[in-house]
Amino acid sequence: MTLEEKLAQLVGFWEGEEGDSVAPLQGELSSTGGAGEAMRHGLGQITRAYGTNPVEPDERAAWLWERQRALVTGTRLGIPAIVHEECLTGLAAWKAATFPSPPAWGASFDDALVERMGALIGSSMAALGIHQGLAPVLDVVRDPRWGRTEEAISEDPLLVGSIGTAYVRGLQSAGVDATLKHFAGYSASAAGRNFAPVSMGPRELADTVLPPFEMAVKDGGARAVMHAYTAVDGVPSVADRRLLTALLRDEWGFDGVVVADYFGVAFLHVLHDVAADLGEAASMALAAGVDVELPTGDAYLGPLAAAVRAGSVPEELVDRSVVRVLAQKERLGLLDRDFAGAPPGGVDLDSPEHRAVARALAEESIVLVSNDGTLPLSPASRVAVIGPNADRAQALFGCYSFVNHVLAQRPGVAMGIEAPTMAAALAARWEAPVTVARGCGVSDPDRSGFDAAVEAARGADVAVIAVGDHAGLFGRGTVGEGCDADSLELPGVQRALVEAVLETGTPVVLVALTGRPYALGWAMERCAAVVQAYFPGEEGGGALAAVLAGDVNPSGRLPITLPRSAGAQPYTYLHSRLGGATEVTHVDPTPAAEFGHGLSYTAFSHEELGVAGPAATDGWIEVEVSVVNTGARAGTEVVQLYGRDVRASLPRPVAQLLAYARVPLAPEESRIVRFRVPTSRLAFSGVDLARVVEPGEVELWTGTSERRRATATVDLVGPVHRLTGEEPRLPVVEVG
Amino acid sequence: MTLEEKLAQLVGFWEGEEGDSVAPLQGELSSTGGAGEAMRHGLGQITRAYGTNPVEPDERAAWLWERQRALVTGTRLGIPAIVHEECLTGLAAWKAATFPSPPAWGASFDDALVERMGALIGSSMAALGIHQGLAPVLDVVRDPRWGRTEEAISEDPLLVGSIGTAYVRGLQSAGVDATLKHFAGYSASAAGRNFAPVSMGPRELADTVLPPFEMAVKDGGARAVMHAYTAVDGVPSVADRRLLTALLRDEWGFDGVVVADYFGVAFLHVLHDVAADLGEAASMALAAGVDVELPTGDAYLGPLAAAVRAGSVPEELVDRSVVRVLAQKERLGLLDRDFAGAPPGGVDLDSPEHRAVARALAEESIVLVSNDGTLPLSPASRVAVIGPNADRAQALFGCYSFVNHVLAQRPGVAMGIEAPTMAAALAARWEAPVTVARGCGVSDPDRSGFDAAVEAARGADVAVIAVGDHAGLFGRGTVGEGCDADSLELPGVQRALVEAVLETGTPVVLVALTGRPYALGWAMERCAAVVQAYFPGEEGGGALAAVLAGDVNPSGRLPITLPRSAGAQPYTYLHSRLGGATEVTHVDPTPAAEFGHGLSYTAFSHEELGVAGPAATDGWIEVEVSVVNTGARAGTEVVQLYGRDVRASLPRPVAQLLAYARVPLAPEESRIVRFRVPTSRLAFSGVDLARVVEPGEVELWTGTSERRRATATVDLVGPVHRLTGEEPRLPVVEVG
Repeated sequence: MTLEEKLAQLVGFWEGEEGDSVAPLQGELSSTGGAGEAMRHGLGQITRAYGTNPVEPDERAAWLWERQRALVTGTRLGIPAIVHEECLTGLAAWKAATFPSPPAWGASFDDALVERMGALIGSSMAALGIHQGLAPVLDVVRDPRWGRTEEAISEDPLLVGSIGTAYVRGLQSAGVDATLKHFAGYSASAAGRNFAPVSMGPRELADTVLPPFEMAVKDGGARAVMHAYTAVDGVPSVADRRLLTALLRDEWGFDGVVVADYFGVAFLHVLHDVAADLGEAASMALAAGVDVELPTGDAYLGPLAAAVRAGSVPEELVDRSVVRVLAQKERLGLLDRDFAGAPPGGVDLDSPEHRAVARALAEESIVLVSNDGTLPLSPASRVAVIGPNADRAQALFGCYSFVNHVLAQRPGVAMGIEAPTMAAALAARWEAPVTVARGCGVSDPDRSGFDAAVEAARGADVAVIAVGDHAGLFGRGTVGEGCDADSLELPGVQRALVEAVLETGTPVVLVALTGRPYALGWAMERCAAVVQAYFPGEEGGGALAAVLAGDVNPSGRLPITLPRSAGAQPYTYLHSRLGGATEVTHVDPTPAAEFGHGLSYTAFSHEELGVAGPAATDGWIEVEVSVVNTGARAGTEVVQLYGRDVRASLPRPVAQLLAYARVPLAPEESRIVRFRVPTSRLAFSGVDLARVVEPGEVELWTGTSERRRATATVDLVGPVHRLTGEEPRLPVVEVG
Repeated sequence: MTLEEKLAQLVGFWEGEEGDSVAPLQGELSSTGGAGEAMRHGLGQITRAYGTNPVEPDERAAWLWERQRALVTGTRLGIPAIVHEECLTGLAAWKAATFPSPPAWGASFDDALVERMGALIGSSMAALGIHQGLAPVLDVVRDPRWGRTEEAISEDPLLVGSIGTAYVRGLQSAGVDATLKHFAGYSASAAGRNFAPVSMGPRELADTVLPPFEMAVKDGGARAVMHAYTAVDGVPSVADRRLLTALLRDEWGFDGVVVADYFGVAFLHVLHDVAADLGEAASMALAAGVDVELPTGDAYLGPLAAAVRAGSVPEELVDRSVVRVLAQKERLGLLDRDFAGAPPGGVDLDSPEHRAVARALAEESIVLVSNDGTLPLSPASRVAVIGPNADRAQALFGCYSFVNHVLAQRPGVAMGIEAPTMAAALAARWEAPVTVARGCGVSDPDRSGFDAAVEAARGADVAVIAVGDHAGLFGRGTVGEGCDADSLELPGVQRALVEAVLETGTPVVLVALTGRPYALGWAMERCAAVVQAYFPGEEGGGALAAVLAGDVNPSGRLPITLPRSAGAQPYTYLHSRLGGATEVTHVDPTPAAEFGHGLSYTAFSHEELGVAGPAATDGWIEVEVSVVNTGARAGTEVVQLYGRDVRASLPRPVAQLLAYARVPLAPEESRIVRFRVPTSRLAFSGVDLARVVEPGEVELWTGTSERRRATATVDLVGPVHRLTGEEPRLPVVEVG
């Protein structure tokens, strides 16, 4: 291969992206040009063929087929390109199913269902000729002010890792490579400001940020990884060899490809100020271990070629990445494809199966935060449906949905999928009349709709107010990429709207359709009920109506703490004693509602937490608990097992999620849940940064991160176990 | 020496501290007992003989003399104790002078004056038989939500280090050992919550937190260091051998004593959960390098004796610390003292010289943040003096002042020093009548005083409203130790008071008497002028009156950014490009007023920044600038030299203070300022954590962190210089 042929394999080409803005600094950086020139020497990847513009999927598939055919027939080597696309909440393509957002996956605590969703997404992608999906996001939430919190699953590393691994397994079961992102530390950007430097030491990184990636690589077999935009303790991840090579490949054994986040290589030059030009940026990223530049070859084509020719970059580094890319293409079967014959077509991207999974996941993800008995509502009661997110389909979707990512910039283009709003679904379900009043917008200051909302509430038995976010990119939303917050009050005048309606005396059910958790303590005190729904996807309106009506008994649990205030951030439940409320500060960071919290329309008791006996430091903790539905309705309890290492060589968290299980229970039914937890779950980085499991007492409980329902202790016995990396990481759960 | 005699040298004894609360968890932890028993085997230190209760200094000196005499005559070895005391804003003793607080030192940018203050404090202490002062605080401000921000000098490491070193030199010139605290990282406690875990990597620690300590050790010759309460990246500093021994002693060559912060050893057991009991806590702290336990011997007496006898702690570790303590006593001359004869007495702790320095420092520290021309006021104008801090002497003092630290818990006890309030000083200075109205309290919600305040403003030509903090301990104040904030709005209803007065149309001069910077952007927009005064000490009221009247031309500069909001924290001016406002986030952290900002009643121009030529990476940057007073009044410009390393192997700050000079200038006078900056000031920790100076272009300017008045560039030439630790650290400044 010539140098040009090699470098061509290391870059993407983004055709037709002019005019839209779906990546940071896209306007300034994107180098466009004719496809012919770009593909003359071959091409590594085709960038966002579906997710850039509203194009008919079948037409686009045929167009892609032609592009691939051109590569096969029109280049010397005849190697097709990998086609990659965003797919976080479903394939980012017009008319494709849009599922709930990642915090909703976390709230469901349902790995199996997320895996099914991943498989459906993957099969849609595969059918359209896409080989690699730029998901899942495995960033552990560290500060809810960060706009991309809505792309992340949870603040708990196990939940992120386990759900994320399920997504990877699902997607890859369809033959589509998953891409783990963002590696690593992005979510801890200072004050939640997108791209801001990350203050974090190697211990916190190893113990909280990296474990989900390790799980998804080792347990999920993920085939691709994307670097983070940020610098951790001063080192930009895109240029961090220790992270992208020493840890990921040498220690973890990853043998897939590392791709750049869009323009991330160029950012070494234009944002991080460490590279003099694009050639130096390319050489730094390549040396660190970034194999493929995306979205295009700004740095890895001409500038890198010049650096190689000048002798400042050894061609062996280029070869190393080319081999990885070709191995990926070989594994995907691309090297044998000739793209002769007819292109694929007629694929149903939003089949009944898609919708059923979207509906089930939405239902499982809705968290009943507080309830004075007003919920479930009687379908005979007169309901006023109020609020900016009550009758707005976009409120159901995250930032990386096609609707909010692409169509937001294309007014007038049809959404392409059915997505009944909460108001529509309630109206369809209800016997009594349902009145609808918007009240106000998500973020604008206009209060002119308050009167009509108050009027509607006065004439109703109950007011359901749907507040929250609009997900968008770079300032076009209240949450999403580039839409960070320095307040955790509801955006705009939404709180004032709720307070105005509360004044009527009509009971208020507050439904938060948000991408990040907001400080809703005031609402929990004053509203009849508070329901937290993360962007629940195309079936989310119906799922919410079903929960409000009691057709579905809510079973979601908070995957992210409901915070007290923005000024108390950063905060995580996963803190040592001094990270919580103490006598030595009068700022109380105790959250409005804790990680793992969620109510039901029935009640559960946890009887007796049984422990098999002491556990070897390199073994398993085995426990079982009996859970009983003591109420009169069927319902699902999410049994969460927590542990606290009472004393260790370094301070340990006061609570740490060890395992979880969804347990559906008929009234009076009782079931036994057995958890086998690898002791590696309790491992931490010691003073010398080696990850160890220490002997000693561990408190165990089921309940939530703060509320203990059934308790026990287990002794870890044996010598200090220094992790080899071969230990199991994920718990084994059995529901009897 | 017996084991008991050795251990006795490693602890303090705190007599008479029952009933007051001046240290965290004091009520739970303090072990009191008779002095006889405590001193039977000798005693390392006597704890807070003056700073615990209001006692007549002379009487206390005589009492101390007796205690020392008892040690000399009543113990086998006859070794006197070191007497230590708090002395941050002046000796913490009844009737002793109380100086401005540390942010005021920072605002003065006047090392020489701080050194004079330190010398005065030290001489008072020496006269009273005190040998060691628990100051200065060298924590670099990382988050103004932290209550102890009011004990810290600045958010810039050079300013902290340079001013802090001056304090050390001053104090130690009087024969009193300074104690550098808190080593290290405390100020970055999560969300500014006291004691909360510090998320920080070794690079940020080395490049921003540690430099002031290194300066004060190497350039100031500081004789003692106190550990921080916190854990950095999971490791409690009190048990961190790398910090307290490997870095401090082995690398930096420190040969003084390391003392515990009060109860800090016990906290390994009761707060950090890493020690099973006090014996284990003692062994961990001792092994890490904590020589002396304070305030008492809870862990280092009985529990440590048992551990040594049980063989779990080698007696050599005890000996190592005993030798250090005895060396300290020997150096202080204590081993030769017999305390025969008469005790000292008749010392004037608040002499005219004390007051003159207190006044000068207060005057130099007041920052004119904004001014539409209303200031200076004419003494002929009718002034309404309003606000909770206008006529309240306590508003002049920090948390570690005797007034707010001790007397706050002793209602009815006289303050013991003269401290005219701002209102009193204005009334004394003014020709026209001055009316005074409190308006509201610092933090209580009572608005009943608003009407009188508004009335007073209506009848005046100008309203001077003094708002701000009350410094106190553990929830007894709005700022101070244990008084953290999750909002940076003015406490209580103070903003509403100001807004009510603004409604009258009378011009408002807002004076912020605060311990932390508040989000005053709104006030800068709406008030005629905003003046930032950190707690300015016993002469602060007069200094403020003099500035308002124009008798003194303000010359303070912001040592800490005036922030935009609590939700945008943490923020520091010392950030890489991505730490500031960017296109990739819509949260703008640009401060209300930037680090280094401060106006004058005259105007200055900076002409031509001359650079001597390229600088060797292991050499000096030499620049000069001509500064001219272009206005009609005499005034002092604080010339600040900043640099920006344009491109380096890792991202560098967009601005970094390199040197500064106070330059008094008569009208039309011009002076040349010459700066010699050691290139080590631009050093940073590379990828391998070695601290290096890299060759390349550095932008230079005078002005503020954000506003460039005169600019130049300098090339650093030569190989990458890896610091040896022998490089000069402090700039050399010459004002021609």
